[in-house]
Amino acid sequence: MRERIRNNELLKKVVSPEEAAALIKDDMNIATSGFTPSGYPKAVPLALAKRVETSGEKLKINLLTGASVGDELDGALSRAGVIAKRYPYQTNESLRLAINSGEVLYSDIHLSHMAQQVRYGFYGKIDIAIIEAVAITEDGHIIPSTSVGNSPTFVQEAEKVIVEVNTGQPLELEGIHDIYIPEDPPNRQPIPIIKADDRIGTTYIPCGVDKIEAVVITDIKDNVRPLAPIDEISERMAGHLIEFLENEVAHGRLPKNLLPLQSGVGSVANAVLGGLVKSNFENLDFYSEVIQDSVFDLIDADKIRIASGTSLTPSENGLIRFYRNINRYRGKIILRPQEISNNPEVARRLGSIAMNTAIEVDIYGNVNSTNIMGSRMMNGIGGSGDFARNAFLTVFLTQSTAKNGDISTIVPMVSHVDHTEHDIDVIVTEQGVADLRALAPRERAKVIIENCAHPDYKPLLWDYFNRAVKQTGKHTPHILQEAFSWHVRFLETGTMKIKK
Amino acid sequence: MRERIRNNELLKKVVSPEEAAALIKDDMNIATSGFTPSGYPKAVPLALAKRVETSGEKLKINLLTGASVGDELDGALSRAGVIAKRYPYQTNESLRLAINSGEVLYSDIHLSHMAQQVRYGFYGKIDIAIIEAVAITEDGHIIPSTSVGNSPTFVQEAEKVIVEVNTGQPLELEGIHDIYIPEDPPNRQPIPIIKADDRIGTTYIPCGVDKIEAVVITDIKDNVRPLAPIDEISERMAGHLIEFLENEVAHGRLPKNLLPLQSGVGSVANAVLGGLVKSNFENLDFYSEVIQDSVFDLIDADKIRIASGTSLTPSENGLIRFYRNINRYRGKIILRPQEISNNPEVARRLGSIAMNTAIEVDIYGNVNSTNIMGSRMMNGIGGSGDFARNAFLTVFLTQSTAKNGDISTIVPMVSHVDHTEHDIDVIVTEQGVADLRALAPRERAKVIIENCAHPDYKPLLWDYFNRAVKQTGKHTPHILQEAFSWHVRFLETGTMKIKK
Repeated sequence: MRERIRNNELLKKVVSPEEAAALIKDDMNIATSGFTPSGYPKAVPLALAKRVETSGEKLKINLLTGASVGDELDGALSRAGVIAKRYPYQTNESLRLAINSGEVLYSDIHLSHMAQQVRYGFYGKIDIAIIEAVAITEDGHIIPSTSVGNSPTFVQEAEKVIVEVNTGQPLELEGIHDIYIPEDPPNRQPIPIIKADDRIGTTYIPCGVDKIEAVVITDIKDNVRPLAPIDEISERMAGHLIEFLENEVAHGRLPKNLLPLQSGVGSVANAVLGGLVKSNFENLDFYSEVIQDSVFDLIDADKIRIASGTSLTPSENGLIRFYRNINRYRGKIILRPQEISNNPEVARRLGSIAMNTAIEVDIYGNVNSTNIMGSRMMNGIGGSGDFARNAFLTVFLTQSTAKNGDISTIVPMVSHVDHTEHDIDVIVTEQGVADLRALAPRERAKVIIENCAHPDYKPLLWDYFNRAVKQTGKHTPHILQEAFSWHVRFLETGTMKIKK
Repeated sequence: MRERIRNNELLKKVVSPEEAAALIKDDMNIATSGFTPSGYPKAVPLALAKRVETSGEKLKINLLTGASVGDELDGALSRAGVIAKRYPYQTNESLRLAINSGEVLYSDIHLSHMAQQVRYGFYGKIDIAIIEAVAITEDGHIIPSTSVGNSPTFVQEAEKVIVEVNTGQPLELEGIHDIYIPEDPPNRQPIPIIKADDRIGTTYIPCGVDKIEAVVITDIKDNVRPLAPIDEISERMAGHLIEFLENEVAHGRLPKNLLPLQSGVGSVANAVLGGLVKSNFENLDFYSEVIQDSVFDLIDADKIRIASGTSLTPSENGLIRFYRNINRYRGKIILRPQEISNNPEVARRLGSIAMNTAIEVDIYGNVNSTNIMGSRMMNGIGGSGDFARNAFLTVFLTQSTAKNGDISTIVPMVSHVDHTEHDIDVIVTEQGVADLRALAPRERAKVIIENCAHPDYKPLLWDYFNRAVKQTGKHTPHILQEAFSWHVRFLETGTMKIKK
């Protein structure tokens, strides 16, 4: 244990999860480590949930994290009815139910905004930060595990810190992190990242012995999410996108090794990067949020110079593979605070190629990433807006249909807007690519319908667009009486198709 | 004239506007100076419009500017049917008609994006740049007039340059500009602005004698827009906002002299800054796009340390006042390229307080800045997105009703989204302030309806919201069948009110 807790004072602060959880009181702001779902605390939240469920006491907390966290935190606490408010991004089934029932209030914030807004005081005082660590240094500084997220700011701003030292997370993670907290305005300086592999900070989260109130030891593994095997639809999307990028290189609009890639979380994103393994591209930089399995493939294929993110988010097999080859992989990986991995300053400077998935896209190029049928929260905007808004090239991908063809993901008007027409350069579906750059809305409608919509829905989209041009005309032709008729039809009949 | 054209070669290139306009051929990309509407070329576009109208020749160009330009350019050319496509922002009546009839294709781009996207090649080759200048240096470099806009990049990228030396613009403007063009990825460096008054470039636009194909001399004045006198409604909005800011200072969330202010164009924005003149705030920094009359008031009241923008946009009287006191004002003013004045990197670093006006806002905090009733283009997004997305504090202002009360600017769902719920911190109407920070959608609805909506529409908004919570529930309660019923009612009956 002296390898993991390198300070004698702190060894004396080792307590049971139950004792640590006893520090948490009603109405507190609790901020934790964790990002899509890795590196989050497990033992203390499980103990807290059990305590509340057993005692029946009234206890509500506001929970701030990096992004989505595992069931031991979001799931257990929302089932125990402990979460009053939750920020930002989540993917847990139980929590999602509680959000959509109105039981948990959820504020869906750009991931790069959260840390600075905590420092700005927009969320009030942080009572306790709970941080998963692989070790604590002699000086009481925290070496995080598989993610960095918002932990550096949470530790800085919290009144007290609980550290979960996770012996299931390998000590070899030490050195992979690069921790930098910007000053706040009016004293902020430029973030000195010029290349994706620049290191600008420390390998630990500054904390200090006195601030650590309790240390808990656990070995519960990250409850990582399975990745769907790469299917034909995803491969076709990846193929279209890679062809598009090759064409950009051929026209001199991108360098031969492209520009730093950002890729969202999930199976489609994983498939797109998988496509790059088989492509002719080399010497790629990856400046993104999450590092999924396909990044290991890119490293193995020697295609990638550096992968910078805020979180390791492999599948279960990917995690085993990472740990088995940790010394090879860790030289190619940097984990940064999400305020830096997703920073608009850096994304614009480096010239990110931002590739994220959409729930639905409309004929004028607006994108919905969060609210299904306008109301039901899926996961949240995550970092897509951080990159989409500031990238060199902003690409959104989606399969052209969902629910076995009963939903067209290309619709007359999206039922919720997370990314506006002003931000979108390229739409990719398995049908093809719509290059929207420099196009007016009426031109965008034509290429989106023609290149991206599913053949089953093309005639209906053309019909809407042509009638909107005739009836309303104007800059962005819409028939407001009908704009959501596809969604309403789905809600009423179970399909966006018109039954004959 | 030797003061204005300081190179002998260039004196020989002086031609008539008609001769310069003869360089413009069908299907060209023409890029001009000009920003809201000042510092745009006048003589050459007037000559071009006249030529086409007289000859009846087929001539269509794509027109790229900084932002809105005067009637001599947008008006004359759109009436002559010369504009095929137009980028970005516009306010001209004739052009707006042509855009909304579908005759001119308009692509509404974030103002900070345009220059880099031109360099990236997203718009194709720039054939000719037409730049208004107060003078040309001995080396053929261009000293711009009352705006900088995208001129530095247009000059750099254009095949040929036409300079309109405007003798109606005072030579004393020399030295006010700060011209800096960032390198493109992967070679871009941090933009070295740490304080609003940092100067980082040259006082002229680098060009060179050879690139200048023709010089035209003119004295046509900027066709500036009148500013409405500050009315009671605007004063009340300004009052609410200043009270909000004072409260932020009292709670330690803002320094005593605030953080750099950004303010949109137009009368409401002017009124808000006007309110600051009478406030107790001092030592203010202004890092924005446009410098309107109230900035001169702030300078006269010794309230302001520096006003950095990309354009001088005073009223006619304001312009006279500026010219009369130019030596006093110019030490307090810096004009930068809009890529720098509106840069997300700088806005986030400095911690902008972004104050822009909305066309309509919905109960969940989404903002429409561009498309009236979802379709009719007003002016464009301008720089509002550049700042809103990256500010320390993002504020949108709107009077709670329009059209003599027949339109509620607070609606169930905005008919077009330019700024998403994720970006908005504060809404201000003459009714009051909604502080949306850290709130979930259901909480936002309550404060927006309660604090910002007009009493005539409050019961209707509560009715929609309460029924949406009951019927649909979920994270963002909406009744899609009714979401645009207010807009439809207005289109059909001329009012959003329900007639009894």
